Amino acid sequence: MINLLLKTKNSQKELLNLTPEKKESLILDIADEIELKKTEILKANLKDIEFAKSKNLSFAMIERLKLDDKKLGSIISSLRQTAVLKDPVGRVIDGWVNHAGLKFQKVAIPIGVVCVIYESRPNVTTEVAGLCLKSANSCVLKGGSESVNSNLALISCIHSVLEKYEIDKSVVTYLANFSHEDTAKLIKFDKFIDVIIPRGGSNLVKFISENSTIPVIKHDKGVCHIFVDKSAKQENALKICQNAKFQKPSACNAVETILVHSDIANEFVPNLGAKFQSLGAKIYGCQKVAEILKCEIATNENYENEYLDLAVNVKIVKDLDEALEHIKHFGSDHSEAIISEDFSNIERFLNELDSACLYANASTRFSDGYEFGFGAEVGISTNRLHARGPFGLEGLTTYKYKIIGNGQIRE
Amino acid sequence: MINLLLKTKNSQKELLNLTPEKKESLILDIADEIELKKTEILKANLKDIEFAKSKNLSFAMIERLKLDDKKLGSIISSLRQTAVLKDPVGRVIDGWVNHAGLKFQKVAIPIGVVCVIYESRPNVTTEVAGLCLKSANSCVLKGGSESVNSNLALISCIHSVLEKYEIDKSVVTYLANFSHEDTAKLIKFDKFIDVIIPRGGSNLVKFISENSTIPVIKHDKGVCHIFVDKSAKQENALKICQNAKFQKPSACNAVETILVHSDIANEFVPNLGAKFQSLGAKIYGCQKVAEILKCEIATNENYENEYLDLAVNVKIVKDLDEALEHIKHFGSDHSEAIISEDFSNIERFLNELDSACLYANASTRFSDGYEFGFGAEVGISTNRLHARGPFGLEGLTTYKYKIIGNGQIRE
Repeated sequence: MINLLLKTKNSQKELLNLTPEKKESLILDIADEIELKKTEILKANLKDIEFAKSKNLSFAMIERLKLDDKKLGSIISSLRQTAVLKDPVGRVIDGWVNHAGLKFQKVAIPIGVVCVIYESRPNVTTEVAGLCLKSANSCVLKGGSESVNSNLALISCIHSVLEKYEIDKSVVTYLANFSHEDTAKLIKFDKFIDVIIPRGGSNLVKFISENSTIPVIKHDKGVCHIFVDKSAKQENALKICQNAKFQKPSACNAVETILVHSDIANEFVPNLGAKFQSLGAKIYGCQKVAEILKCEIATNENYENEYLDLAVNVKIVKDLDEALEHIKHFGSDHSEAIISEDFSNIERFLNELDSACLYANASTRFSDGYEFGFGAEVGISTNRLHARGPFGLEGLTTYKYKIIGNGQIRE
Repeated sequence: MINLLLKTKNSQKELLNLTPEKKESLILDIADEIELKKTEILKANLKDIEFAKSKNLSFAMIERLKLDDKKLGSIISSLRQTAVLKDPVGRVIDGWVNHAGLKFQKVAIPIGVVCVIYESRPNVTTEVAGLCLKSANSCVLKGGSESVNSNLALISCIHSVLEKYEIDKSVVTYLANFSHEDTAKLIKFDKFIDVIIPRGGSNLVKFISENSTIPVIKHDKGVCHIFVDKSAKQENALKICQNAKFQKPSACNAVETILVHSDIANEFVPNLGAKFQSLGAKIYGCQKVAEILKCEIATNENYENEYLDLAVNVKIVKDLDEALEHIKHFGSDHSEAIISEDFSNIERFLNELDSACLYANASTRFSDGYEFGFGAEVGISTNRLHARGPFGLEGLTTYKYKIIGNGQIRE
């Protein structure tokens, strides 16, 4: 493993020598190659799906694993978008002259070697590789065993293009057949890896954060909330709640708990219940909700849960304060939305909560690098440091200071 | 300890409610209070110095510990400068509209609870407290046992002003009489602390980085280099080398190795040697330097060493390439300088090296928050993520996204 990581580290220098134009055409060619190898990739994915089903993996897991024409199309278009993004390396972030006349430039540079440990989603493979190539970082990718065939099919496309460009394939290193013990070793190699980004279940993220000696950007759980205020346009509110739960239940930015102002509960909750139950969602309600519609009673465990599935908590709150309190207590600081027409309440919601993404009158499902306009995303950070919320190219850079003088010494 | 940390965490909310004006006057009042209590503080410091001497602590350690009128004056003026800095909280870092018409604002917010673990320097106490108050972070300070009297004297000034303002004193919590075991526990309390900043010896930094479950911003060692190119203005070069070694040998931004281009070695090295030896510095030279002046032979261990003392390595290199290679191999990515009139060589030095601070024709001693124009510094980060190099207020903030819609759902 040391040899492999050393090669990945050393190969990064090759990326620093590529012009922005070269990096762009390199990534575009990878997209073309994937388009060309569509059939092989889907075949490999089918193998993974069959394996996953035979192992009785969860609905959410299989959902995330599955590739089809549409998903592969979005993998390809995401690479093409990444290719033409503005080159993040060398950007002058800030500049000034100090009291002694030294001229400072704060300049963006790659982080170095980025390691992503993930489960299921094969699109992570190409998104991370594309973003890392664009930002001149080497990457070490460790996908789950359930997606090994899909990932290797995608990696083979990336490597064949790198070969064509005469770039060391080690700049995108994929770790297949990796045991838990191997991972435990990997996360201690701070000499070779500059950042680890775990994307997967809470246990994976917890294990890595607690044991890694390398800085970690967590992509941890999203217990997202929507508060429907009494002044909400209820039709909008219903549409947004539906979108936030059903458009992709397996996503971390899907809503898990809907808080409804008591003044509109008798009108809104039955509509919400009818819609959600007709679409197959299981509802866990507070005592008052259970008086309005047929549902199970929500416990604290429900309120803490990231369902990633067709289930939702519904709770009636007496005002904004109770909603804020609930979110502060049970939330994971990921994404929350208020649906309201009340200016002061919206202001308080956006200011008093501390989550990475706070929405007024929009779906929490927008917490995503692409939707944010970042082209693609490395992940959604639940860290407070470095990158927070959806992050893409900018989160893959750090900076250095270039300081020009003409003989200055410190007095 | 849990109670103490919980209080620190909860008290942070009080800081969020202070207006920028209030924070400014609060910090100014702390400066005034310290000025008023000058005699007591110097008396407390004397006790620490006597203790340190009785324990035979190193020259560098005692240097850092010592307070006098001048140093206390700079503690006071640093607080006054921090007080009037632009408030970092609420700054809109970026803003845009996405494809769906959502309006994004990326807004700076405090990190939360900042813990600094440090040795000797009492000025860290007031600088960190001042910067944390200004940025609405609570802080947990753990100084070394050698500086406990000085630190408690300063903390008592801070607390008496906080009391006057009716702010919970827990916003600046000082941990005195803390054992090594206590520290080992402290760095696992990721529920209460959002970032740990160790400032001290390599062992302290290593222990914390390897064992903390809280994100760490390291303030690790500085093995800083100066390369004197053949085109250098030698008088400037000599002045800069002297400043970088002697102005404060105990600082992490002091130079440890001077690399001299072979073409000018016969002229420059004797002058450098004479000057440095007359000022009491011990020189470790490469074989060729030893042929020019009387010195010990430098080993790899010397080249890796952060002396923090009146000692320096001098090595003759045949060109820029050899200088870059030496720095990449032995450097700690802290601060390096090239003294040269050659445009291409300066460009290569600034671009090919990866250190946090790269200087052309200036002393490495400028790697400091105050000299950078940040008002004061929390430390000099040797991390690659979040904050890098000298960092102050900005490094004590993170951000959240406020997103305004009018009913948008994700398609």
